[in-house]
Parts: sequence; C-alpha cells; structure tokens
Amino acid sequence: MCIRYQKGKNEYKNWIVNESEFNVKSQHKFETIFSLGNGYMGTRASLEERYSRERRGFYIAGIFDEYPGEVTEMPNLPDWIETDIYINGEKFNMYKGRIYQYSRNLNLKDGTLVRNFIWENHKGHILQFNFERIISMKNLHTALLKINIEPMNFSGKIEVVSGINGRVSNSGTQHLKEGIKRLVGDDILYIPETQQSEVKVYMRLSHNILVNKSTPNVEKEFIASRRILKRSFKFNFEKGDNIEINKYLSIYSSRDKKIDGNLETKTLNNLNKIKAKGYSKLKKEHIDKWSSIWNDIDIKISGSNYDQLAIRFALFHLIQMTPNHDDRISIAAKGLSGEGYKGHVFWDTEIFILPFYIYNYPETAKKLLKYRYNTLDGARKKAKDNGYNGAMFAWESANSGEETTPKYGDVDILTGEEIRIWSGETEQHITVDIQYAIDQYFKVTDDFKFMKNYGFEIFFESTRFWTSRLEYNDKRDYYEINNVMGPDEYKEHIDNNAFINHMVYWQFEKALEYIEIIRDKQPDFYKNLKTRINLNQEEIQEWKTKKDKIYLPQPEKGNIISQYEGYQDLPEIDLEKYKQGEVGDIFNDFGWEQITNSKVSKQADVVILTYLLEDKFNTETIKANYDFYEPLTLHDSSLSPAIHAAVASRIGKIESAYNLFQRAARIDLGENMNSSDKGLHSASLGGLWQAIIFGFAGFNYKDKKVYLNPKLPNKWNMVSFKIKVRDNVYQLAITKEKINIQEIRVKEPIPFIVNETSYKVKEKIIIKY
Amino acid sequence: MCIRYQKGKNEYKNWIVNESEFNVKSQHKFETIFSLGNGYMGTRASLEERYSRERRGFYIAGIFDEYPGEVTEMPNLPDWIETDIYINGEKFNMYKGRIYQYSRNLNLKDGTLVRNFIWENHKGHILQFNFERIISMKNLHTALLKINIEPMNFSGKIEVVSGINGRVSNSGTQHLKEGIKRLVGDDILYIPETQQSEVKVYMRLSHNILVNKSTPNVEKEFIASRRILKRSFKFNFEKGDNIEINKYLSIYSSRDKKIDGNLETKTLNNLNKIKAKGYSKLKKEHIDKWSSIWNDIDIKISGSNYDQLAIRFALFHLIQMTPNHDDRISIAAKGLSGEGYKGHVFWDTEIFILPFYIYNYPETAKKLLKYRYNTLDGARKKAKDNGYNGAMFAWESANSGEETTPKYGDVDILTGEEIRIWSGETEQHITVDIQYAIDQYFKVTDDFKFMKNYGFEIFFESTRFWTSRLEYNDKRDYYEINNVMGPDEYKEHIDNNAFINHMVYWQFEKALEYIEIIRDKQPDFYKNLKTRINLNQEEIQEWKTKKDKIYLPQPEKGNIISQYEGYQDLPEIDLEKYKQGEVGDIFNDFGWEQITNSKVSKQADVVILTYLLEDKFNTETIKANYDFYEPLTLHDSSLSPAIHAAVASRIGKIESAYNLFQRAARIDLGENMNSSDKGLHSASLGGLWQAIIFGFAGFNYKDKKVYLNPKLPNKWNMVSFKIKVRDNVYQLAITKEKINIQEIRVKEPIPFIVNETSYKVKEKIIIKY
Repeated sequence: MCIRYQKGKNEYKNWIVNESEFNVKSQHKFETIFSLGNGYMGTRASLEERYSRERRGFYIAGIFDEYPGEVTEMPNLPDWIETDIYINGEKFNMYKGRIYQYSRNLNLKDGTLVRNFIWENHKGHILQFNFERIISMKNLHTALLKINIEPMNFSGKIEVVSGINGRVSNSGTQHLKEGIKRLVGDDILYIPETQQSEVKVYMRLSHNILVNKSTPNVEKEFIASRRILKRSFKFNFEKGDNIEINKYLSIYSSRDKKIDGNLETKTLNNLNKIKAKGYSKLKKEHIDKWSSIWNDIDIKISGSNYDQLAIRFALFHLIQMTPNHDDRISIAAKGLSGEGYKGHVFWDTEIFILPFYIYNYPETAKKLLKYRYNTLDGARKKAKDNGYNGAMFAWESANSGEETTPKYGDVDILTGEEIRIWSGETEQHITVDIQYAIDQYFKVTDDFKFMKNYGFEIFFESTRFWTSRLEYNDKRDYYEINNVMGPDEYKEHIDNNAFINHMVYWQFEKALEYIEIIRDKQPDFYKNLKTRINLNQEEIQEWKTKKDKIYLPQPEKGNIISQYEGYQDLPEIDLEKYKQGEVGDIFNDFGWEQITNSKVSKQADVVILTYLLEDKFNTETIKANYDFYEPLTLHDSSLSPAIHAAVASRIGKIESAYNLFQRAARIDLGENMNSSDKGLHSASLGGLWQAIIFGFAGFNYKDKKVYLNPKLPNKWNMVSFKIKVRDNVYQLAITKEKINIQEIRVKEPIPFIVNETSYKVKEKIIIKY
Repeated sequence: MCIRYQKGKNEYKNWIVNESEFNVKSQHKFETIFSLGNGYMGTRASLEERYSRERRGFYIAGIFDEYPGEVTEMPNLPDWIETDIYINGEKFNMYKGRIYQYSRNLNLKDGTLVRNFIWENHKGHILQFNFERIISMKNLHTALLKINIEPMNFSGKIEVVSGINGRVSNSGTQHLKEGIKRLVGDDILYIPETQQSEVKVYMRLSHNILVNKSTPNVEKEFIASRRILKRSFKFNFEKGDNIEINKYLSIYSSRDKKIDGNLETKTLNNLNKIKAKGYSKLKKEHIDKWSSIWNDIDIKISGSNYDQLAIRFALFHLIQMTPNHDDRISIAAKGLSGEGYKGHVFWDTEIFILPFYIYNYPETAKKLLKYRYNTLDGARKKAKDNGYNGAMFAWESANSGEETTPKYGDVDILTGEEIRIWSGETEQHITVDIQYAIDQYFKVTDDFKFMKNYGFEIFFESTRFWTSRLEYNDKRDYYEINNVMGPDEYKEHIDNNAFINHMVYWQFEKALEYIEIIRDKQPDFYKNLKTRINLNQEEIQEWKTKKDKIYLPQPEKGNIISQYEGYQDLPEIDLEKYKQGEVGDIFNDFGWEQITNSKVSKQADVVILTYLLEDKFNTETIKANYDFYEPLTLHDSSLSPAIHAAVASRIGKIESAYNLFQRAARIDLGENMNSSDKGLHSASLGGLWQAIIFGFAGFNYKDKKVYLNPKLPNKWNMVSFKIKVRDNVYQLAITKEKINIQEIRVKEPIPFIVNETSYKVKEKIIIKY
C-alpha cells in the first residue's frame, strides 16, 4: 500500500492525499484520484516521464467523437505533460538508479499536484526533483507545469525535451486527425481535429527556463514527427543550481461556447497573458479561487481525520469535474478523470450530484439542468423512435441527447456471444429522475424564471412520454409499466418496479400541481406555454385519469414493498461471503440467470425510492424495507453505499450508516489499488455529500422550512457546513449536544425546526450575525 | 555503440548481428534491423516486456487502410509478442535490478532472434532468461516465441501474462476496428478489421508452459479489456528449474489469396497443426527452409568479415520482406520492418531489388512484375486523370495502383506552409523503370509466356503513355519531356532530364523491337494482342515517328551529359563538409531554393542512366560523367551509394567503389543508431547485391552470353555466388587470379566471356560437373 492520508500538517492537515512510493501496480489508481481539472478540461495524473503501463488522459468536457463501429466518446487529447529530462545524456527514469524520499501530494486545498524526490543515478550523481502542476480554476483555458531540479553533488549538462504528443488514444482508438502543428517563435501550436464530429482543438504551449532565476544560455532545437511536435532545450548547470522549467498551456476548442473572433488568436492572446503574468501569480490566483470555493463548500468534520479528508476529496473532485462554464454539457459518470463510460452523462448527475449544487451553487445546478433542456430534441427523438410521445431521455447521454448506450457490451469471450446491454432501452427511470431533480431545484431556489424558460417544458414533455408509456391492464383496470430495469441493474425486464411506478405517479401529481400553479399565477405564460408545446385541456385530463390508475405497489406483509412483481417469490442466495468481498465476486459462483432470478440486488432500489419520496412512506415502512433489502444488496454499484448510509442514518441505524458511509468514502480514496482505474465514481462522491447532509446532519428542506434531525456517528464530534436555500446562506455547526445556526447572508429568513425527540439535543443556539 | 559484428563463431561466423547492451537510444535501430518476416508478415524487434520509447510494429503485406484525412498505409496490427513476467509479484523489467551478460543475436543463418541475459533483482534473486522468436519461412501463417527462464538461487512463484494487445497504432493513427476477441478453450482468438478497407485479420494464439519439460500446475485466468485479450498463468518454481513458455501464433487475413473455406477454421486448423508439431520441429523446419534459401542465394566473401556479414544481412532482409506468395502486392520501400513510406511500393523494387530475384528466383521476379500488371488499371486511371493515354504508373503504389503519394508532406512547422510533394506528379520515370525491369526479366529468363500474358500489355500501355506525354517543340522540331523530376530529387520541375529522355527513347526502341518479334514469331498472338489493347498500325507508326525526334541530351564539353536543360549553368556549392556529414546536413546551411538551383545532387541521376543503359555510352563518357557528378552528389538518398559503387567498379575506380560499397553496407547495419528508425532501406539492400555482382564481379549478361569483368576490392580474396540464367544455374568463384565457374544445373550452356584486358586474370578455369 502506498497511499497515505495523514501527510498534511498545520494548515494542510486533512487536505493532503499522499502517494508514498511509485508502484506500477497502483499507477492507474493515482492517475485517476490525482487527476486535475477545472470543469473545462481534465487530465489524468500520469507522470512527466513516461512508463510503459501508464494510461495518459487529457479531455475537454463536451467534445465527443465516434470511431467507426464504436460508440461516441470523449476523445483523449494530445498530451502536453510529457517531459523527458536527460542528465549528461542519460534519460531520467525512476526505474534507473535509486529514488529517495519519494512523495506525491494531491493538495486539495490549493488544487495542486506536487511530486518530490531525490534521484541518484548509477554514477552517484544526485539530483533533487520537484514537479508541480495546476489546471487553473481561475482561467479555464490555462494549464501549468513547473519542474525544479537541483543537482546536489555535480555539474553537467541537461537536456529537456518537451512539447505536444498526439500519439495518444482512447485505449487504442484514435479520434483525432493530426491537423496542424507549428512552431511559432518559441511556442508550439497544435490544432488536431476530431475525425467524425470535426471539433478543432487549439493547443499552444510555451516553455520558460530559468537557472537561479535567470535565463541561461540554451541551445534550442525542435523535434517534429507524425503527431508530435516538441522542443529540446540544452544547457549547462553547476552543482547547487536551481533549475526551473515552466510550461504554459493555453487551450480552446471550436466547440467552446460563444468564442468571438479567431480561435488561434484567442489561444495566442491567452498564452501571452499568462506568460506575462508568470507561474507564481497564476498559482496564487488559482489558490485564491480554490480558497473562495472552499469557503463556500467545505464540510468540517471533527473526530475522524479520514472522513474529513474523504469529504474534501469528494467535493474537490465534484468541483473539478463540473463543466460549470457551459450548459450544453453535464457531468460525466467518471468526470474528466478517465475513459470509463466514455464521458457519458447518466442519472448520476441529477440524483446523486445535483443536490450538492442545489444547496451550494444553484447557478451551477441550473446549468446542469439546462443541459437536459438543450438535449430535449434528442430525448424527443428517442421517444419517437420507440413509438412514444414527448421526451424520453437517454440512459447515456452525450452531446445531442440521443441514446448513446451501446446496444452490446463486451462480447462474452468464452461463448462468443455479444452481451446485450438493455439499459439504453429499459432504464427508462432516467426520464423521471430528471424531473425529480428539476422539482428539487425549483423547491430550493424558487427559480420560477428557469421553470418558465426550461423546467416546465422538460417536465411536461416527459409527462407526455410517461402518458404514452403507461400500459393499460384491462383485467385489473390499472396502468402498468412493464419490461423495464429499475435502479437495481441485476434485474432485467421486470414489470411494475416499485421505484419507477411510484416515481412516475409522483411526476403526474407534480405535473398537475404545476399546471394549477401556472394557470392561477401566470395565466399569460400558461397560454403561451400551451401553444409552445401544443398542450390542451384534454391531455391534462388524460394525465389526471391515468395517474389515478397507475399501479402503485404497496407495503405488504411486514410492511415490505415488493421491488417488482414477482420479486417476493424469488429464492434467496446466501450473500454473506459476497457482502464482505470485492465488487462482482458473486459472478465467480453464480451465472447471470441465477443472479437475476434470485433475491440479490446490485444497489438500492426500493430503498432509494423511500429515500427520494420519503414523505410518501411512514417511518415503519422505510425501516422495514431497509431492514429487508439491505441484507440482499451487494452494493456492487458505487451508487449504493452512500444512499444506504443516508437512509440508515434517517432511521437511526447510525452504526450501519457509518459503515456504509465509510464504504462509500473508500471507493476511490480507499486502499483498493484497482477500483478507480478507469476514472472516479462521481455519483458516489455526490452521494457522500448527501449521506452527511441529508443523513448524519438530518437536513431536510420542505414546505419552505428546514427540518433538522441530526444523528452524528459516534466518532464524530461535530460537522459543520454552509447551506444555501432561496438565496439565504446559513452556516450550520452540529455537535451531539448543540446545533449552531449562523446566518451568513439572509434575505428572507427560513424557519429551522429541530426534531428534539429523536435527536437528544441538549442545547440549541441560533446565532444571528 | 552497442552493435557487434563478430559474435558468430564456428558455423555461425559472419552470420550473427549482435546487440551487446540494451540502450534506449538504439531501441528503434534494433527494432528495425532485427525485424523478422517471411514476406507474408513482418514484425519489428520490440522486446517482450514493454519500454516506454518502443515502436512496436506487426504487419501483413498488402493490407492497406486509409484513416480520414491521411494517406493509405500498412496498418500496425495487434501485438502478440508482449509478455509480462512477474517474479514473486515483481514485474520484470531490465531497468530494475541488474542485468549481466546481455546479448541479443539476429541469427541470419537460422532466421532467429535470440536474447540472453541474467537478471538480478533488488532482493538478490538471480534468473537466467532466454527469449527466442521465429516468423516461420516454412509456414507463412505461423509465428513462434519461446521463453526460457532459470531461477538460479531461489524458489518462488511466477506469473506470465501474455496475449494479444490491439492498443497499437501507426504513430497514433488507429486503422483497426476492435472486431471480435474470444477465449476459445485455452486459445486467444482476435479478429480485428480495418476501418476503411474492411480487411479482417484472424489471429489465434496458444500458449504452452513447461517446467523441466513437464506441464506444471498452473492457475489460469484471463484478462479482457478494450482491444486487449490476455491470459495469466501462475505457477510455482524451484531453484534450478527450467521454465519454458511457448507462444504459437496462427494468422490469416480476408485479403489472403484464394483461401478456401472459413478463415476462422483455417486459422484454427493451422494452430492445431503447429501446436501438435511443437516448437522444436517447427524451428527445425524453419532453419531447413532458410538453409535451402542460403544454398541458393548466399554470396561468400573472403577477406572482409564485415562485408560478408553485410551482404548476408542484405539478402536475409530481402528474402524476409518479399511477398513471394502473392502477386497482388510488391515490396515496400521499408519492407515489413517499419512504418516509413507507409508500406508503399516505389521504383526501388524494379530497379534496385528485382535484379537479385531475376538472377536467383525468377519466379519471384515474375510475381513482383505481375503486381504491376495487377495494378495496371490504377496506372490507366492515373494516365487518364492527368490527360494522357495508356498507363502512367504511381510513384507510390499500394493495392490498387492508383497514386498514393501524399500531395503534401509535413507542414513547414516554421512557416506553417504545407510542403508540396511533387514526386507523385513529376517522378514519371517510374513508368519507364518498370518497363526496363520487364525487359531485364525477359532477357534473362526468356519467359515469353509471361510477356504474352502480362509483359507486353504493360509495356505497350506504358509506351502509349509516353507517346501522349511527349511535348513537341516546333522551334527545335523535337519532342521534349518537361516539368519532371529525375532520380535526383533535389531538382524539381526540370526539363529534358537526360535519364528520363534516354530511358523513354530506349522504351520506344524496345517496344518497336518487341512488335517485330511478336509479329514475326507469333502472328496469332499479335493479332489477339492488337485487339485486346486496341493497337493499330497507325499507332505503331506514331511510336516510330516520335521516337526519332525525342530530344536526347548528348555528351558535350568534356563528355559531360547535362543532367537536364540548364544544369550546367547552375552555381556550385562547396560540398566537402556535407559529403563527410550526415544525410540532410546541407539543409542546415542552405535553403531548398538554393539547393535546387545549384550543382548539388541527392543521388545518382546521369550516373544511373549510364549504369542502366551502359551499352548506349562509351567507357569514356561513363567515366567522365561519373567523375563529374559523383563529387556533386551528397548520397543523401540511400539509393545512391550502391549504384555509384557498381559504376565506379565498372570503370575501374576500385577504391572509390569499395568506399561507396562500404557506405551502402552501413546504411542499416552500420553504427549510426538512428538511420533505420522507420524501417530498412530495401533499395540499398538490393543495390548491395548489384554492387557485388554487376560491380565487383563484373557480371554482365547480354546477347545470351555472360561477360565477366571482375575487379575485386583490395581487401577481398574471393567472392563466390550462384547465378541463374535461362534456367541454368552456375556457381562462380572469383579471386583476383582465378575465375571458377561451376555448372550446377545446366540445360543449354551459356557462353562465359571473360574480359582479360582490364582484369588481369592469371588463370581461368571452367569446371563442369
């Protein structure tokens, strides 16, 4: 194990994730969890010098390309990090000679990645190395690298070879035409273009070399070959010199929103600007920006250093992966940290991540929801293609909103059969999940303008979809939703999934409620909207009629809601062994058919229903279903533990809740050296925030009031965080004894109601500033 | 420097090229010069374990694919060589721990590549490694790898991870769709498909693991991910065990000629066959096949070990790169050893390589010429597209014969201007070069059947092209060929290049001669041919008329033939410095415009004219032109030194000849660690054969007689070789004193005429067996 959590000291305590040695086995783990990004772009943490097993990755959010016969994905862009260093002709590599005092730190507070070590080559020459990189949060089109080298016991000659290398791919698939590469003065300009979607990427890289803060005599050359353009810098050094190499990258793309003027000029101007500013100032701006973000979003946990680090790690990556600058793209399932799920957008954004933004940066939440508006035509197309009305959202969504879930996954390499992926067709619940998120956003922000311009249209178009989707069962005289997949992906082609039917019922209720509100309060807009989406009274009447006859699975024996029709008749499998093991262990002993036909779940299904529609179920039902389903759930989806933690916490099972929270908090940050190979688990990172705020802190905003029902884990002494509701910002500090509520910025105070029954509050103080 | 030439002992003396240490700087050199192939496929000599700077390459002759916006090229196929070895969990890599007694041998005699060394890891565990690979000459669809490991001072556990890795590309460009990958029993089946040309490649790989010749208990797993399918084998070993891992690859493609039945079955059947035979037998068959080839083609040189090794190295690679099994593809400029020139076919085949085949394996020479017949439609298209008649051959040719020379080369990375490549339009001499080769083949083989079926049609269609190509100058009343590039590529857009005009004149002469022969001897065929290619008396008359008025630059002052019109007026550049330097050095000091407007040549131009059409010029002219042009020639083309060596030898400048021969013999095999990065220099390898046979040995077959006028280099005591003329095989042994001519297989004896004037023969023995 080479991950350390307690390396941060003083002001960096619980802000540092440390790699204590370089090990080929954990290479991909650190490439992912140490990835840097600013929502516009993201880079995996591959090293400056290259190693054979590495998976380099550099992405711009929202660029997609389709290679013949493959599914559209986020192309891996040319690499600008690679830097070869030759010391007296010998190429530096950590496998050669010896490495002392190796340390690589992801600094969550400053948003930097820093690598330090001392290298002794086989001649006994010793050098101190320091590598630092930054993807600027302040200036989205700027990325920086700084290398410091100090030769400790000899003088000699150094050669630095650095530039842009386009010989990268998505696991072998090349999405980019080579395009233009040019040496302009001392800068490297590289403009590749995606082969199918025809997006041009403008990269311009500049180097600055200093020895003891002055410019040395440098012998310069360039190296140009296919898909490669680099510079070589040769210069002499004396023992004890401080050699510094700065790399400045300016990057734009033809997909960028509203770029005025020539992109090449834009790229150049930005480069000139940042070069003039210099590394230190840019770094300071970047840290300041992070500092202001942390001031808004940090959650302080007292009592567990790991938990403190873990929630910061989660928030850090959520911020890094969110394309806050552009409402035409949303958050990818792996953020900008890897190729997994091809950069596609799932329900992960709306159900798992969005609450964090709604309560912290509602403007960002709005942008993420606007992505769904901007892809509404794709959803309309999907509905039409499948014989439905309205808008049926893509299970996996990219640029256009059309379905991008591959129809077939990996071939079963034993039978040769293609493994059919049904989620694109059957995970239809995405369409109601998005509506749930819209309603949450509206509830917390009162943003009627958003609803008028975008929200209602999405909501009603989706209601239309469900109206056409409902299947009438004339024997039973109710509407069913059959042949679907619920959140639990170990169950395919099921009928009347409780989660889906209840959520869809909720959507009809809410749609009718919206109609009433608009009709009463905004008659002009109502008229206008009806014309815009061609909505008439008959259709609204149909919603009412159908709603009332939707089959809603009810709590039955022992208060258990059947996950879907027939679930209770399935046999059980003894899951004890698999619940302790690794994801997917059960497949070693059971085939797909057996698993899909047994009482075994990949993730929360009825449990997430009782989580999202809490008010629809009484506490006994929520409890009974948690107790029934959790033991049957393997948490083989990273979406599962955090939600279970929140529900467990709500029903007072603090120990279980904390265990599941811990599990969620270790999916990426934990000691497993392979779980994050293909990228971060965004949904789980968002789920951690929910487990703390909606779970342990017991925060619940409804009917324009905040209800607090905290149940802190034993280990925790306090949790403290800011929360934004209807433009009011509060700072909450919750201990086992007290709740301290500070008004940071209040326009229209919100009532806070603390449940003093289940939460043994000894003292409650509300302080106003 | 880590190349050694004298490692071969006893029966391997002068058969071994040795790499004495692994050095990242010479990685690409050895990947190229140690490449293995059998004409069907070729693989670069990248190592089993991976290193970051490697350029892995595996190709099948004749498969081409075009990536959007790029030129068609030979795709780099999935890698089957890669093998990761973990010793007690530590991944083996030569950079870790220490390496003793490193040696990698290309064994030219056996056609094997063998790597040996002892590795001590940082724990002091010592292992002896031996890697051997074979691309079977006997069975074109078979490739083999054998790894032997002996743990010398410890017992432990080993894991071998091996399979097929499709994450390879052509310098970043991916030509292959992933296709099918499957685990069938213990075998790995991988069927990728080119994305544009839709060729399927069928690869099936099997492993056999032995410890002390027995099958150990092996824990097996598979690793499947995007474009990757591998096996993992784990087993225990004791100190002193002999661990052996065999890899068997069976490979076919949908482009293969006349494959009956299912290709997957074919691939399986071959795999089963070779596995049943086993590594040792397959190796023996392979060595036997090489042995029989060497029996035919070996040239024995006494007096210089390097020269002996160099000619074998040349012949070895010529055989390896020649797709002898298929007349729809010819030899690529870099063979199957690298991506350089994209696998395209140039005049290199006909002018530089073909003579070796004509005099050794005329059947192969015929196939290579049939490639031009099979691509005649492409040549017809090029003629038509350019407004000419007949067939205008592509300067760079791939599958269809259409022009594949890129119109633009690398962009000038300083000015951003695209560098226009004119050779596709202006190196029109390829069309006459091919005719010269056809005539040579016909002259030496008397293969009238080939001529009737293919040769005449190519010849006359090309004559037609030249007829339409000639430009009438009414002022001077002769035909010109303007705006061309001659062999010397430092001169663009020139008029009346001596080489081209003389060669085209020769073609007209020869065409008319052929017409007469056919008309007289084969009246029926003549009639038939005239119908087939729509040839009439008028057209033949036009050939006669035009031929007589082609402008033929004549020897002028000092017997010098002007390379083209105006050449003699150009200024000179002092070339001394560049003649000693590296290829392209002159560009450091002079721009393209200056070079193209000065008396400086990249390669033989008038000199190669006097070489090919020797009989058209008297010795004084040949001599004068050599003396004039050689000092102006930088030999910046690898096509230059060998031809100059042959001419120098013919004119008695033995020392110069030998120096140039040496230069040619070091282009790939020499100490320069970068010259072969992108692949072998096929033409130079063929030129070496010509320099020896047509140069030093003074061999000249004409008018159905062999003329011998040998002039051995000082260092040489003897040169000995077989030669095949009109189905008669002779073995010649030439010393400075004697010529020994053995009749190996003679049907119709050929007269041998030795020039006893210029060659001071002391004794001449003709022995008949």
